[in-house]
Amino acid sequence: MITWNNLDTLASFKELEKVERVNLVEAMTGESGAERVKNYSVPMAEGLTYNYAAKQVDDKVLAALAKLADEAQLAEKFEALYNGEVINTGEKRLVLHHMTRGQLGEAVEADGVDKRAFYTEQQAKIADFANKVHAGEITNGAGEKFTTVVQIGIGGSDLGPRAMYLALENWAKKNDTFKMEAKFISNVDPDDAAAVLNSIDVAHSIFVLVSKSGTTLETLTNESFVKDALKNAGLDASKHMIAVTSETSPLAKSDDYLAAFFMDDYIGGRYSSTSAVGGAVLSLAFGPEVFAQFLDGAAAEDVLSKNKDVFKNPAMLDALIGVYERNVLGYPSTAVLPYSQALSRFPAHLQQLDMESNGKSVNRFGEPVDYSTGPVIFGEPGTNGQHSFYQLLHQGTDIVPLQFVGYKNSQMATDVVIQDSTSQQKLCANVAAQIVAFACGKSDENRNKNFEGGRPSSIIIGEQVNPGSLGALLAHFENKVMFQGFVWNVNSFDQEGVQLGKVLAKRVLAHETEGALKVFSDLLNI
Amino acid sequence: MITWNNLDTLASFKELEKVERVNLVEAMTGESGAERVKNYSVPMAEGLTYNYAAKQVDDKVLAALAKLADEAQLAEKFEALYNGEVINTGEKRLVLHHMTRGQLGEAVEADGVDKRAFYTEQQAKIADFANKVHAGEITNGAGEKFTTVVQIGIGGSDLGPRAMYLALENWAKKNDTFKMEAKFISNVDPDDAAAVLNSIDVAHSIFVLVSKSGTTLETLTNESFVKDALKNAGLDASKHMIAVTSETSPLAKSDDYLAAFFMDDYIGGRYSSTSAVGGAVLSLAFGPEVFAQFLDGAAAEDVLSKNKDVFKNPAMLDALIGVYERNVLGYPSTAVLPYSQALSRFPAHLQQLDMESNGKSVNRFGEPVDYSTGPVIFGEPGTNGQHSFYQLLHQGTDIVPLQFVGYKNSQMATDVVIQDSTSQQKLCANVAAQIVAFACGKSDENRNKNFEGGRPSSIIIGEQVNPGSLGALLAHFENKVMFQGFVWNVNSFDQEGVQLGKVLAKRVLAHETEGALKVFSDLLNI
Repeated sequence: MITWNNLDTLASFKELEKVERVNLVEAMTGESGAERVKNYSVPMAEGLTYNYAAKQVDDKVLAALAKLADEAQLAEKFEALYNGEVINTGEKRLVLHHMTRGQLGEAVEADGVDKRAFYTEQQAKIADFANKVHAGEITNGAGEKFTTVVQIGIGGSDLGPRAMYLALENWAKKNDTFKMEAKFISNVDPDDAAAVLNSIDVAHSIFVLVSKSGTTLETLTNESFVKDALKNAGLDASKHMIAVTSETSPLAKSDDYLAAFFMDDYIGGRYSSTSAVGGAVLSLAFGPEVFAQFLDGAAAEDVLSKNKDVFKNPAMLDALIGVYERNVLGYPSTAVLPYSQALSRFPAHLQQLDMESNGKSVNRFGEPVDYSTGPVIFGEPGTNGQHSFYQLLHQGTDIVPLQFVGYKNSQMATDVVIQDSTSQQKLCANVAAQIVAFACGKSDENRNKNFEGGRPSSIIIGEQVNPGSLGALLAHFENKVMFQGFVWNVNSFDQEGVQLGKVLAKRVLAHETEGALKVFSDLLNI
Repeated sequence: MITWNNLDTLASFKELEKVERVNLVEAMTGESGAERVKNYSVPMAEGLTYNYAAKQVDDKVLAALAKLADEAQLAEKFEALYNGEVINTGEKRLVLHHMTRGQLGEAVEADGVDKRAFYTEQQAKIADFANKVHAGEITNGAGEKFTTVVQIGIGGSDLGPRAMYLALENWAKKNDTFKMEAKFISNVDPDDAAAVLNSIDVAHSIFVLVSKSGTTLETLTNESFVKDALKNAGLDASKHMIAVTSETSPLAKSDDYLAAFFMDDYIGGRYSSTSAVGGAVLSLAFGPEVFAQFLDGAAAEDVLSKNKDVFKNPAMLDALIGVYERNVLGYPSTAVLPYSQALSRFPAHLQQLDMESNGKSVNRFGEPVDYSTGPVIFGEPGTNGQHSFYQLLHQGTDIVPLQFVGYKNSQMATDVVIQDSTSQQKLCANVAAQIVAFACGKSDENRNKNFEGGRPSSIIIGEQVNPGSLGALLAHFENKVMFQGFVWNVNSFDQEGVQLGKVLAKRVLAHETEGALKVFSDLLNI
């Protein structure tokens, strides 16, 4: 029997608050540090490992976190979710994004169909379509092959797919699975669409219009923008566009599109990279086999997330440590720092995933909570960040918990030896060095050169950014965010906070404003 | 007589803490809101306006902030800085980046030369070089014109110039001043250089190696990477490279470069966009006249920053409101939200500028401070962010102060009318709507749809992102950060916090490690 309780009503949380704080400098120095790095480690899927040695935890804190996981029924709640309970209570919806990549539990029927069958069928349709495009069986109006795919979408229809595309672009080129360049149009700023259109050969481009509801204003506006461009080039827009939408949307049956592929209301935008939202553009760019490997990696990680033993469940453990940092240690933000240029936009995707899911002040029953929920998430790839905001991370007045990601191998295997090491070795040496620098610090009589240390971090270590490991990495964070939502007792699957701005923007465009909004509208010449 | 005192020793700060807090919802609702929008506004240079109506301030708070500005001697300290005092006390250096774009006060002599003359001479040399490249007088070894410029640099040699290039790329294309495409290599991750090299025609590319010291490991590594590629293509690397460095660096007199242009130790990396660091790549990409307009915009904004009247000094006012939010209201982070796709990487540049400058725990005398200094800075362009992390900004448990930027006109003037408005109007309507939504909120019986409001923001409004307004925008933030550093009594011009990681990374590469660092090195296969 599942019960949904606020974090501050749980006995295990009160116990957790009483556990003695860990002195991270001491813990990570000398032999005890070496032991921690060896022991505080959980295998993930696809050769990844989650290492939490440099987090501000010890066996006592971890035992308390395990009790919290039990009392908050994290494993049971995940089970309920993947077995089809209405976990998105605000919108009265199931939460089925895991099912886009595997069957974790019972079959789930909704809208009169088996949902796993529905998602696999969509993926099969996309694969068939992509293969035909690559084979030149589906072409532009002149019978020529498409060379570029352009995704038109915003939010979850943009950030996730874009981050995944960038993550795999060079891997695919190196591994001869690269099929077509992908571009993305998202912003309602007309310069976004104009710049992308200027950079491509529209006659050989296929556009993927992505909107679940078929009503997203930015996306429909950019669709018109693109259709104008196609028309001006003397092209038939309906021969250049496909739609990814829900079956009930106005786009679903339109003759305006070469084809339509479907997702549904059980896939939140920020959780949609493994659905048709990511599937169409990534299958066109890299081939359906690559997308299938990506799904397999995510599915394998999902299976680990089912584990009731928190020490064998990396996403759950990561989530709990994050809650400890947020609600006991009081740290307000978290930085995501992948040491991989391929993951340059992965932090931006996690920023949406995390902040839109758990940036809530009411619990799932609509009652205000008296504790902090989701933190601010930000990040840039290393080593770039080291030459930017790391100054504050090392010596600022606030402590920012860190989430590193590092890989043993590069994607392209083109490297150079300078001062007896390759660039890849330098990259890895830097992430190792940073973890220890943040945790241990270094005393200096010149206080300006003094490092207090005690700044916690974890690292996910992998062999290489490739489709499988990327899927596993993505699923890890999706599940981490889900578990944190369970602990905070919030609904991680709605986003009512985005509504008010939309309503007011419409009012501005209709010139139905007064007061401050009217004056701002005038200042902006609307 | 200037005195450097900690913020918490100032009588005006103690007064500020006692001023009654502003109820922003009330203040911004109805006619009082309209009045605030009209009155709480300061002209900036190049047609920009700083509007702080939606900040959590009123006349009483503002009067207290003005007193704080006086007691902290902000105008006098800026005057001392631009007149050549050693403001970067830790490194015993002058701080002269303003002089790259104008003469604000007295002539400053250092290293035996007039520094303004030195910077203008470097810019003239760059302009001459760029003009010759554009005219085909300086060519590759085969006598062919260069078509691409690639900047090799990291941190301040990357983020600022890259953000400025992206900001002006489409403006330049529209205004027929676009000369060459620019690319950037920064990360030591070998996939960064490999991907850029794969995307260009190296035979027609000119590389700008940027390192003040000539010893930045990432940059020298990437230089070798590029030289290998040039050699493998049968090209003479010395005919494809220029250096931007200090006159005393090992790169300065080398035959390895077509030319060398100089900056010096008085220009911090994060403040170097208006020096040769930005000058070379931007002059090559857009022509020296465009770079000169950018400098003029920055210089005009600098002049406003001299004003002792805080209500006529937008950077100083912005700085003080930020201090109020950080040290009195207790908000730990700030989001920068430009409603312009052209400014997509401007937040990443500000993140370095702000966090590296003021993320310090000791004052300029090396004594620990007992108050918060620089906040976490993050951001993405709107409207994209609305579909991402705005959920937390609207309804999360923490309040995040916001800094909007919006423009009346697009850069490319290609637009489309959907539902009776252009995309540009929709973009502007959204930023206006967001300000009011954040400030005023909206009550709803369903608490999940309730917006508390009271979330403060400011907006900088401009006509268009163009070279002049971009320079003004950049200078505004540089000066804001400088003023905040004065208030917090920290040295905003050093970055000792980046050193420890470098030292430990070298130790890892030399295999001179033990304890946790040794085990992490093993796990990462170094």
